Amino acid sequence: MTELSLSQPSFALDDAVALLMRTPTTLDALLRGMPEWWTRANEGAKTWSPFDIVGHLIHCEETDWIPRVKIILEHGESRTFEKFNREAQFEASQPQTLGGRLDQFAALRRENLRALAELRLSDADLDRTGRHPAFGVVTMRQLLATWVAHDLDHVMQVSRVLGRQYGDDVGPWRAYLRIISGQQG
Amino acid sequence: MTELSLSQPSFALDDAVALLMRTPTTLDALLRGMPEWWTRANEGAKTWSPFDIVGHLIHCEETDWIPRVKIILEHGESRTFEKFNREAQFEASQPQTLGGRLDQFAALRRENLRALAELRLSDADLDRTGRHPAFGVVTMRQLLATWVAHDLDHVMQVSRVLGRQYGDDVGPWRAYLRIISGQQG
Repeated sequence: MTELSLSQPSFALDDAVALLMRTPTTLDALLRGMPEWWTRANEGAKTWSPFDIVGHLIHCEETDWIPRVKIILEHGESRTFEKFNREAQFEASQPQTLGGRLDQFAALRRENLRALAELRLSDADLDRTGRHPAFGVVTMRQLLATWVAHDLDHVMQVSRVLGRQYGDDVGPWRAYLRIISGQQG
Repeated sequence: MTELSLSQPSFALDDAVALLMRTPTTLDALLRGMPEWWTRANEGAKTWSPFDIVGHLIHCEETDWIPRVKIILEHGESRTFEKFNREAQFEASQPQTLGGRLDQFAALRRENLRALAELRLSDADLDRTGRHPAFGVVTMRQLLATWVAHDLDHVMQVSRVLGRQYGDDVGPWRAYLRIISGQQG
């Protein structure tokens, strides 16, 4: 992205893992023990609460990232990834307390990072390709980078959903708060 | 905000403190020990890196929230708040390592929450008013709610700045990642 002023090294698996191992702790620090009205509040119809978002992250750990890594390694482009269920966090199979969801997300992430380490992916493996149901051919590197960016996307979303609950309370300061005004930047 | 589907209780100081005490731990979990290229990267000219953002939060603890609370209690609307310096994080007085900044932010937040508790603000105190240099009359409640929303705004920003560094690496998945595409929602 040319808009970035600092040079970024090429994608490195160690960097990705550095972030992936931190996400469960980050969400735990932000959410565990918070008032329930707040962690169950969303941004309106068909939007997700922090509770919902952690459920979504659990489902991704179960069905998306490492399963797709293994499909690439075992089948390459010949087997299309399964479609992802974006509504799984509303099913009864998920833990029904936020603490339970945070625990399960942390445990699944630990297992998945252990599985990733055991695969000992080489630079050549990062160039291997698979087939996405919508995008067609994708690389292992893109899949792993997306795992990272997806974590950060949802940390961002959790912060935003929490912050917006104070939209009225901040009064005139809403003009300075991008989290309330909805502006980027 | 009528767009929110779940009912929110009226602003409560205990809720605000529940979030405020978590922010240093959240940022510590997300940032400490991460690769330096990543925590020093920004979103382009005149934008902030995670390192810069933690410096900004330090300066807010030193000059904004609790000092303004005290101005309201001592002077009401008769003394306008000091203008805030949005560039203080680029000054040499700030710690020059991310770990040092995280430590300082956590220590200042602890002190400020202790000072807040010692003030034993009543519901009537939350209705007290002060004078903002741009907005005019504001309430204690609005100031404290803004402290909370401002924390979350910058947790959101840190996540976004980190995620955008992977903007190229995710390939076609950028279409699904609001953190990269810049879309809200």
